[in-house]
Order: sequence, then structure tokens, then C-alpha cells
Amino acid sequence: MTFTFDAPSEDKAVLETGPAFTPRFDEKGLVTAVVTDARDGELLMVAHMNAEALALTIETGVAHYYSRSRKGLWKKGESSGNLQTVEEIRTDCDQDAIWLKVSVAGHEATCHTGRRSCFYRTVSLDEGKATVTITDNHRQFDPAPVYSKN
Amino acid sequence: MTFTFDAPSEDKAVLETGPAFTPRFDEKGLVTAVVTDARDGELLMVAHMNAEALALTIETGVAHYYSRSRKGLWKKGESSGNLQTVEEIRTDCDQDAIWLKVSVAGHEATCHTGRRSCFYRTVSLDEGKATVTITDNHRQFDPAPVYSKN
Repeated sequence: MTFTFDAPSEDKAVLETGPAFTPRFDEKGLVTAVVTDARDGELLMVAHMNAEALALTIETGVAHYYSRSRKGLWKKGESSGNLQTVEEIRTDCDQDAIWLKVSVAGHEATCHTGRRSCFYRTVSLDEGKATVTITDNHRQFDPAPVYSKN
Repeated sequence: MTFTFDAPSEDKAVLETGPAFTPRFDEKGLVTAVVTDARDGELLMVAHMNAEALALTIETGVAHYYSRSRKGLWKKGESSGNLQTVEEIRTDCDQDAIWLKVSVAGHEATCHTGRRSCFYRTVSLDEGKATVTITDNHRQFDPAPVYSKN
């Protein structure tokens, strides 16, 4: 990557209204990334980015994350073809979260289960127990052959 | 709160397809909550919930979070009147993130700066520096008198 981020100001007013993008990475060096479909605003996934992933995303216009399970840079869609082209990047008032509006290539799927969104289940309280109900069971692709190649 | 969450299964298939909502709280006891406006899907804020906040949100239908800065339960909108009524709760494939679709009362503002959304700035690369540009500067309310009461 060809640029780095300056350290965040300790002045709240600078963080909230200044011209610099100075993401507040947590003690693990990560910020939260919320990813929505630029077409209709559907929430697709929540992930994390380190400085390298965030800089690459800004530079290349293709979404990169940090995989906490694999402990490394993750170019989303590299295996499945469902690359995310970034249409807009936003940040929040205290600069510790990132919002990506993306266009998804390939099968137009984001979830590793083959669904469009990772948020395919609704939560409710059923006789005192918290339960989930699948509200989107449509698979855009069959994940088994895609990920078995890895 | 009158119910608690069962511990998450270590079986990925149970987490992804089973009927139980068993949120995967991190080592600090928190999950990430993404909050959108039920009306038009606009991303309003990203926050965190501990088990108490999540259970209260499910039970009462009013969004509660855990304030990491104040280290305590946070009934969003209690000071400003901008309470969030929860229209739907979703969770993602590995149950470590929550999506709330809400209706915002009061000034219909979520950000403490008085804006509708905390994500009022767009990120870009400008001559090798990451910069932010304010894309929504409309204040739904003047935060100064509201929060000075605290």
C-alpha cells in the first residue's frame, strides 16, 4: 500500500469535523466495516479491517478485509468470484466504524453459505427462549464446490 | 431481564442453521450491533451490546446498548428523546453481529451531533491523503442544550 493513516486526534471536535480520515483502530488494530449493497441498501455483512485492508480498499476500489479466523488479509470474493466493488466509503462520528456501499460481482452473494446476505435470520422470543428463523433461504450459488477448492 | 442466552455451539452447522439464537459475545462480552432505519434502510449507527442490553432489546422492543465509554447499559435516546423502537432483529451466519431495523422517535436523529446518521462523512483519497467530506450537515436538533442537562 502506498499510503498510511495519521494517528487520530485526541480532540473530539477534530475527529468529528476535521478534514482528515484518521480511523480509530482498536487494540487489535481493527475497525468494524459494515457492508451494504449500493443498489438497494441491503445489509450484506459485517467484517473487520486493519490498516492494510482499509488502505487497499481505498486505493483499489475493491473491498479487502482482515480475516480474524485466518489472521490475514482477505480479498473478499477471491475464491467465489463475488468480489465487491466499492461505490462509496463513509465513516462515523468517532471514526471507529466504516460503511462500504458495494456492488457484488459473480453470483451477487456475500455469505459463505451461498446466500445474498449473511443476515438471513430473524431473531424472536419464543416461550422465553431466543430463537432464530431463516427468512432468506435462497442460495445464489452452491458453496460446497467453490470452497472445497481451497 | 427475564431470560438469558445459551452458550453458542462449537458446531458451525448448528450456529448457521439451528433454531437457537446463541450470540457469540467477544472476550469483552460484546456483540456488534448495526442499526438501520426501518423506513428506508439508511445506516444510522454501529454500537455494541452485552447480554443484558441484547436481552432487554428483545424483551422490550426498545434498543439498548452497552456504552464502552461509560461502561454501562445505554438506553439509546434516553437523554435526547430519540428512542429507537425495534421493528426487526436479525443475526448473521456466525451469530457475532446483530442487525436492528428501527424507527427513531423524537427528532428522528441518531447521532449525538444532531444528525440523522452517524455516517455523515464520505472518505476519499486526496493527493495521497485519506480525507473526509461532510455529505450530510443537516442537524435534526441542536445537541448542546440536550446533552448539557446530563
